[in-house]
This record gives sequence, C-alpha cells and structure tokens, in this order.
Amino acid sequence: MTFWKSFFYNNINNSCTKIIDKENILLIKNLDNKGDLFDIYLNINHDINLYDLEKLCDSVGWVRRPIKKVKIAIQNSFLTACLFYNNNNKKELIGFARATSDESFNATIWDVVIHIKFQDKGLGKLLMSQMIKELRYYDINTITLFADPQVIKFYKHLGFIMDPDAVKGMFWYPI
Amino acid sequence: MTFWKSFFYNNINNSCTKIIDKENILLIKNLDNKGDLFDIYLNINHDINLYDLEKLCDSVGWVRRPIKKVKIAIQNSFLTACLFYNNNNKKELIGFARATSDESFNATIWDVVIHIKFQDKGLGKLLMSQMIKELRYYDINTITLFADPQVIKFYKHLGFIMDPDAVKGMFWYPI
Repeated sequence: MTFWKSFFYNNINNSCTKIIDKENILLIKNLDNKGDLFDIYLNINHDINLYDLEKLCDSVGWVRRPIKKVKIAIQNSFLTACLFYNNNNKKELIGFARATSDESFNATIWDVVIHIKFQDKGLGKLLMSQMIKELRYYDINTITLFADPQVIKFYKHLGFIMDPDAVKGMFWYPI
Repeated sequence: MTFWKSFFYNNINNSCTKIIDKENILLIKNLDNKGDLFDIYLNINHDINLYDLEKLCDSVGWVRRPIKKVKIAIQNSFLTACLFYNNNNKKELIGFARATSDESFNATIWDVVIHIKFQDKGLGKLLMSQMIKELRYYDINTITLFADPQVIKFYKHLGFIMDPDAVKGMFWYPI
C-alpha cells in the first residue's frame, strides 16, 4: 500500500468530523505527527471560488461551462459541499458536489467531482456521506442522482438503488 | 369517439394559448358555442390551494403527504404549473406539475398529475409541453424526471430519453 493510500485509508476509517467553526468541518486530521499538512476540510454552503472549481473540473476532463451559468447554478442549489486539502495553510479545492431540492421531499445531487490526484482515496465516499447527512438533517427522504455507467458501482456502495420499482431516469434536451 | 374525446382532441389540436393576464393562460377555448363551459386554463407559479391539490392527488390514488411538507416543497420549487377547468365560472384544479431547478443547467420535474376524470384527453401532454416551454425560457437545457413504468411511453412521446448514454437514475432512501 502506498503512503497516500495507507494515509487516507487509515484516516478515513478514523475520520474525526470535528466542527472547526460555522462553515468548516475538519474531516480528516493527519495523524502522522507532521502538523496539519494533510488535513481535509469540508465546507458546506460557503462561497466558492469559481475559478478554483473550474480548475478542479478541468483536472477530471469535464467540458468547460460558462462561469456565469455555473454561478447561477450554485446560487440556486440548495446544498453545496467542498472538500479542501490544507497544504501548508493554503486551502486547495479538491472535491465538490451540489444538490437541488424542494427542501422537503426530494433532492437531486449534481456535479460530484474529486480532483484527479486525490481519487481512489475514499474522498468521494466521504463527500457523498456528508451530502446525505446534510440532506437528511432537513428530513429529505428521497435523494436522487443520475449516474454515468462508470460510477454506478460507487453509488451502489453508498446505498443508492438503480431504477427502484422499474422507475427510470429520463432526460429531455432541446433538439 | 365520445363527445369529451372528440372535444379535447379537436381543441388540443387547435389550442389557442391566449394570455389572459399575468398569471392565466387560456389553453383551450370551447369552440362549441356554449360559452366558456369547458375552457382550460394554465396557471404558472401562482398560489395553490393545497386542499384542492390534495383532492386532485386523491383522485389518482396517491398516498397522502403532510400538507406542511407539500407547502414547503411548492415554495421551494422553481416552477409550478396548474391546469384549471372553468366550470360555470368556478375554477377547478385538474392538473399539476412542478420542477426543482438550479435555474441554469438542470431541472427535475416532479408530481405530474391529471385528475382521473380528465385523463386520456391530451391534457398531460399539454401540461408537460408548457413545463418544457417555461424551463426552456430560462435556457435550461437538461430537463429530467423519474418515470414510473406505466408512464415511460408517455414521456417518450414528449421527447424524453430513457437512460441516455447508459446514465442511470439512482435513489437513496433512509433505512
């Protein structure tokens, strides 16, 4: 097991989820006595630097979207969650997800992304678990998403069910 | 063809979509010279009588939901559309749909319902077409929904695609 893999593995399984202040939650505290070099923070519904988000999305090869439209989408999302990596006191955005919701029955999760360098370390699972936890806090019982084929297994592990009772996800696009 | 069937068939194919005022759009005008007995109105983002909505949902056998939660869901929906039937100047709610949205990229349509007595007359198609039209006005390009097996065909006729590029609708429920 590589250092990173063992670091994240150990930390995720011992993640501390400590509330630092109103907006920041320390999810993973580095335990290797090297200060807080590798601390991972979760940030809920906080201001997002749209250029940092663009950089994050670039890292996984997503098609660029107009910053103006991204801004509106974030403003009108019920929930946004960011993962930051604390690199020598410089916070670097390494994960993002957002959800639209009626704040009562349903929420739909969109744009789940983990920086390419930080993938396969359990951070996606961590981010999604926090999204679910937040949405459950508002008593939202149906959390939905649309999963690309390569991430269906990932979401299944988190408890998401594909096509329950033969309910199908459908899309309409302008011609 | 029964009177109702032929009436709606003729009218939907000649529907007038006339804006009456800021909130009301006359969709179908009775053409049989009997006054406005059968006029159908569309109402966008207007106050909804929650008890009328409950009655409408009862007519199709939906499980009742707490009125308080329905109120919150409607308040936090980006778009609501109601169909009214003008019965001797008494407006009767006969159709409803709503959508959550980030007001930029995506919208998800929920709770599409046509009163049991008014089904199979093309009103569902009319309601959905108006929903799409409204969402497109805001330049929303991805309109999604989760369809029960018995209505998949209906949505396909409206141009909705099931599992495009093997993208799957997934659901998470609390255990």
